[in-house]
Amino acid sequence: MILLRHELGDVLREKRLQQGRTLREVSADAKVSLGYLSEVERGEKEASSELLASICEALDLPLSQTLSLVSQRIADAEGIAVPVPLPIAAHRAVVSAA
Amino acid sequence: MILLRHELGDVLREKRLQQGRTLREVSADAKVSLGYLSEVERGEKEASSELLASICEALDLPLSQTLSLVSQRIADAEGIAVPVPLPIAAHRAVVSAA
Repeated sequence: MILLRHELGDVLREKRLQQGRTLREVSADAKVSLGYLSEVERGEKEASSELLASICEALDLPLSQTLSLVSQRIADAEGIAVPVPLPIAAHRAVVSAA
Repeated sequence: MILLRHELGDVLREKRLQQGRTLREVSADAKVSLGYLSEVERGEKEASSELLASICEALDLPLSQTLSLVSQRIADAEGIAVPVPLPIAAHRAVVSAA
């Protein structure tokens, strides 16, 4: 299952690293705790809408652009998730004797 | 402040209404409570990533497309939020005598 918080965390971390900034710097600018930002970036915590807005502002990244980047990442993942039929022999059922 | 949960709720509600479906129907398909879905649609509750994925699936709306729609709405709102200078007389300061 593709989860918003995982893709969002990746986008936020990528942007921060592109700017050469530390978790400490961005968390201070966004007025969130360093631990919270770290968990959001790792996709472990759902960012509240208010704190997401603060983090985006600290990164100087409009919320619309953040979500557009996340949408593109998820579209790629959804594309990859589509099963591709391969020309292999049909799976033979294994009947358990237990 | 533009909040993700407000715009997301509007998009989810619009899609449900376009499909002519009730809260009861979509909440049952998404395996979330009717009250939860209603609060998410009204922008009162943050949807967890797992339940957002379920709601999108119940609406047959890929998560990437949902976020793309939300991104467009927010881009419009961010555009509107830009202050436009109007050709009006300068505000005259009121000096309090208190």
